[in-house]
Amino acid sequence: MKLYDNPHAPNPRRVRMVLAEKGITYDREELDLGAGDNLKEEFCAKNPFAKVPVLELDDGLCLSETPAICRYLDEVSDEGSLFGTTPKERAIIDMWEHRMESMVLYPALFAFQHITGFFKDRMTPVEDFGKESAKNFMKSLPVLDAQLANNEWIAGSQFSIADITAICAIDFARIVKVRVGDEYPNIQRWYAAMKERPSYAA
Amino acid sequence: MKLYDNPHAPNPRRVRMVLAEKGITYDREELDLGAGDNLKEEFCAKNPFAKVPVLELDDGLCLSETPAICRYLDEVSDEGSLFGTTPKERAIIDMWEHRMESMVLYPALFAFQHITGFFKDRMTPVEDFGKESAKNFMKSLPVLDAQLANNEWIAGSQFSIADITAICAIDFARIVKVRVGDEYPNIQRWYAAMKERPSYAA
Ligand SMILES: N[C@@H](CCC(=O)N[C@@H](CS)C(=O)NCC(=O)O)C(=O)O
Ligand SMILES: N[C@@H](CCC(=O)N[C@@H](CS)C(=O)NCC(=O)O)C(=O)O
Repeated sequence: MKLYDNPHAPNPRRVRMVLAEKGITYDREELDLGAGDNLKEEFCAKNPFAKVPVLELDDGLCLSETPAICRYLDEVSDEGSLFGTTPKERAIIDMWEHRMESMVLYPALFAFQHITGFFKDRMTPVEDFGKESAKNFMKSLPVLDAQLANNEWIAGSQFSIADITAICAIDFARIVKVRVGDEYPNIQRWYAAMKERPSYAA
Repeated sequence: MKLYDNPHAPNPRRVRMVLAEKGITYDREELDLGAGDNLKEEFCAKNPFAKVPVLELDDGLCLSETPAICRYLDEVSDEGSLFGTTPKERAIIDMWEHRMESMVLYPALFAFQHITGFFKDRMTPVEDFGKESAKNFMKSLPVLDAQLANNEWIAGSQFSIADITAICAIDFARIVKVRVGDEYPNIQRWYAAMKERPSYAA
């Protein structure tokens, strides 16, 4: 399989971390997003919404949308599950994963897009919304810290896809100087544990 | 089980449609979002992010995040699957569901929140971003129309959760006068088929 990738973008990193956790080998092609490689016709045939990541399977099927790719990789590999094993476990992991995506990662992405104007050739940045998004990111941290006060990992006692999404969001937010401060000791403890995992470098 | 619900909001409607498709009976409690029922301490104990829907299970577990609730309901019920049956089928449905959520539903929600200022007691609306979001919604329609030119339902030949998310987004967008025009005959054909399903009224 082949990953259409970018080394700076948080969504492709979520997929690379899953691939690393699972020990799956893959080919990759790097796209220069600033230069608009992802807007070219050839790539849009793989994903009409023109975003990375895309995972091209050996039969030619192109999967896009990060959570869909991550769940697929989890299902077809043998390693321990990142998405849970019973319906209730899966629901709790899905819940935390979607919270990390909608309340932490997307605010970080919006802050980047609307504050820096990096993609202004293809979208209209609204700086005030970028600043609001940075604040929304910060507003989610107390909830995350409280969850990590009582749980080793974000969705409970097991490492899961929710941890991967959260670390990709938190690291990416630094690009717009949004950082998790020392007032969140539980997030800091979790962050240190995340850094120890070999997949962190993916 | 009990659904914390609101009759006008699109995310709770996604859950009600799944419950209707599955023929699951449930209790419901309606929250007045404008009045801030969802911001009260009692509700925040069920969902610290203070959003509906929340599904309270009979053992007291409170599930939030719409996709997590919908998948859980799909897994624990016997009726035909809304999320697919093989890993590849599931990946394609997940992909389209997440596209409908991130490229159609969230733009509609952002357009509503930032254009109307309905929640201005708890967030800072940025009108220009609301207008951009309405445009982003419209930009996704050609891709959806093309997909429906070749497929009966959004994720292929089977009705799925992607159809539910899309109809909830499209109906909700009307509140800010964003409508799917006659230039999208395939969406119109699909919309008419959706209206025939008993779950449409949920
Ligand atoms: N909904 C997509 C979003 C992917 C996304 O936002 N990708 C960004 C990089 S993290 C991208 O391709 N940006 C390029 C652009 O917007 O032109 C997913 O879940 O994969
Ligand atoms: N990520 C949540 C979002 C839920 C959401 O946006 N709910 C809206 C209604 S559709 C809400 O509760 N709004 C009230 C508020 O923001 O105060 C999910 O997937 O369920």
